[in-house]
Amino acid sequence: MAEIDGARLLQRLQTLRSFGATGSGVVRPTYSDTDMAARAWLVEQMEAAGLDAMIDGVGNVFGRSKNPGPALVLGSHSDTQPTGGWLDGAMGVMYGIEVAHALRDDPTTAHLAVDVAAWADEEGTYNSCLGSRSFVGEFGEADLAATNVHGESVAEALERVGVADRPTARFEPGRHVGYVEAHIEQGPHLEDTAMRIGVVTSIVGISAMEIEFAGEQNHAGSTPMPRRRDAGVALFEFGVRLRERFESLAGPTSVWTIGNVRLEPGAESIIPGRAWCVLQFRDPDPEVLRAFEAAAMELAAELTAAGPVDVTAGLARASMAPVAMDEELRRNLRDAAADRAAGAWVEMPSAAIHDGTVLAPHLPCAMLFIPSINGVSHDFSEDSHHEDIVLGCQVLADGVVRTLTQS
Amino acid sequence: MAEIDGARLLQRLQTLRSFGATGSGVVRPTYSDTDMAARAWLVEQMEAAGLDAMIDGVGNVFGRSKNPGPALVLGSHSDTQPTGGWLDGAMGVMYGIEVAHALRDDPTTAHLAVDVAAWADEEGTYNSCLGSRSFVGEFGEADLAATNVHGESVAEALERVGVADRPTARFEPGRHVGYVEAHIEQGPHLEDTAMRIGVVTSIVGISAMEIEFAGEQNHAGSTPMPRRRDAGVALFEFGVRLRERFESLAGPTSVWTIGNVRLEPGAESIIPGRAWCVLQFRDPDPEVLRAFEAAAMELAAELTAAGPVDVTAGLARASMAPVAMDEELRRNLRDAAADRAAGAWVEMPSAAIHDGTVLAPHLPCAMLFIPSINGVSHDFSEDSHHEDIVLGCQVLADGVVRTLTQS
Repeated sequence: MAEIDGARLLQRLQTLRSFGATGSGVVRPTYSDTDMAARAWLVEQMEAAGLDAMIDGVGNVFGRSKNPGPALVLGSHSDTQPTGGWLDGAMGVMYGIEVAHALRDDPTTAHLAVDVAAWADEEGTYNSCLGSRSFVGEFGEADLAATNVHGESVAEALERVGVADRPTARFEPGRHVGYVEAHIEQGPHLEDTAMRIGVVTSIVGISAMEIEFAGEQNHAGSTPMPRRRDAGVALFEFGVRLRERFESLAGPTSVWTIGNVRLEPGAESIIPGRAWCVLQFRDPDPEVLRAFEAAAMELAAELTAAGPVDVTAGLARASMAPVAMDEELRRNLRDAAADRAAGAWVEMPSAAIHDGTVLAPHLPCAMLFIPSINGVSHDFSEDSHHEDIVLGCQVLADGVVRTLTQS
Repeated sequence: MAEIDGARLLQRLQTLRSFGATGSGVVRPTYSDTDMAARAWLVEQMEAAGLDAMIDGVGNVFGRSKNPGPALVLGSHSDTQPTGGWLDGAMGVMYGIEVAHALRDDPTTAHLAVDVAAWADEEGTYNSCLGSRSFVGEFGEADLAATNVHGESVAEALERVGVADRPTARFEPGRHVGYVEAHIEQGPHLEDTAMRIGVVTSIVGISAMEIEFAGEQNHAGSTPMPRRRDAGVALFEFGVRLRERFESLAGPTSVWTIGNVRLEPGAESIIPGRAWCVLQFRDPDPEVLRAFEAAAMELAAELTAAGPVDVTAGLARASMAPVAMDEELRRNLRDAAADRAAGAWVEMPSAAIHDGTVLAPHLPCAMLFIPSINGVSHDFSEDSHHEDIVLGCQVLADGVVRTLTQS
């Protein structure tokens, strides 16, 4: 097996971190000057690893192996959250470059084809996963019109950064036999169980529902309790009863969250006439997602029937379906993990969305996790142990070699 | 008994309405140009009713009877809510002027002393009830420093409107034997029970508590349910359980409201790390207020002990104590109501705060209510039937005569 160069990997990660470094964290939003400078540097690194690299027409950095296929695509995203960490996305891109580099330098693997991608805007500064959507031909008008918090559209941003007229990297069905992404876990499971490698079984599906409560606004002093139609009271009731219902329907890894609520008019001396919240839930099993959605609708209908507040529930947007990881890619990653991290690897679903959610309907996908310290991500304090970072890259390299030499 | 002039009363009310008229409502915030123009016109009307009138050093309009005491003070406030109705406050001021006018014109009552007040800023554009506080010597530095939404202080406003150097009307213990305020009910009780006059027994006390929930902010996808410390979930639980507790402690007219909540950071994909709400409650019985406060504290402590979120509860500011209306003034109003509205009057507490809350610790106070159509106030649609407006004024006049002829 080809051996990766851990020192080179860590050095490249630290250099990428310097683009937008802010304390221990990184601020590198999509299409910002720092993001585009990082992408130009990524092109150089991919070229140094032996790839033909370019920034494409939507800002993806794509490095294509000079070897004929079959090829695996490795990668992740190089943009960050508004106040992000140094590894989320960045690590998967650097793993791709290091694996391509290491395989090119080993005579036994120099003939294998690894393409590397740094997808644009996975974090949704403009519109989540737009780079991977472009790769599979699902980038459209809605993406071009999407805006960042400053009101700049993707179309305007692509003109500003000078890539609007470029070709885009596209999925090549005859060449690309799979996509493998490595990522920090962004949760506590691996650390809690003293595991060092997670082989992802599926990426969860996600649904968001808006719940609306229509009561009657009135004076909080002179309106007797029996006459009130307090939308806030109904919201509290919904929150408590939802929890009981969802607990009875939940799978082992189900999660649900009410992260945002609003009472109107939101004044101390006025009975809330309207209330609103967003309920988000995630599960690897589409049946559980459907059961949660139905339970929320049913609870809204029951509360409306009981009165005095009308409660309505509906999907805030189309759900993202769960996607299963490819069995053959998973097996090769399992075998590589068993070889390099015996007794310290585990299979697990991904509770966060990744570009694989977009890609999996088009080509076989797999993911590899390493532990997040304290389970933290999307925060300046995000970090992982260096030995875990190096180990994960070696397991990925071995899995890639296993896959490409079996094809 | 002196008879009031209903047509003159309604005409004056319509004229006062024209200062700041906006559709069917009125926008006349304290110390605005329209408010000061209305006060200048009120001085003229008080003079026409035979009083020595002035705008005082805090903007109160005070009309002093030329007769020696004992005197009753009648009145209310002439400022409005940001989007107010035409009767809230205005009606009580016009009742005072009409009663003074009618008593002056009737030879049997012309010797009686009625002073009339239009208090400044009852609605709290700057600081609630500052005019009545000035009257009883409780106006201080905090009032001068209070600001409106534009950041103007009371001190600046009094300079701007040109009254800062004037004397202020003050409570005269040897002369003033009581204060009587008429007001629209601002609730549905009189209309619901087909009553036309409410004799107020007490003005409720009011307490506001801030409840804080301290959990742990985290990723809404990758944080397992058992590991969460969701401040929003604790808020919902508090809201539901509070309702059960308060229902078991409530008096017949107790009300409580959570009108304002906040989840932090308030994002769909982030578990709320902190939550906050304001709980307001009102009751005429100070024991009930104390029991509610203790129950909220106890519930917070129980939720904290049960975990996983820390809940703390404390008064947002000093409570306003309930105040009882004076028994002799109440009896005279009851007798007047029985005479003019037999079978259509009732005793009831006031669930809204009024200037009487400030005045009652210093001199005997009473209040008279007439029905609000649909129980609405603090809204452009606020209204009352004209025959109720006229009836209320006559009952007030009769009650005043009964009181001053018995003294």
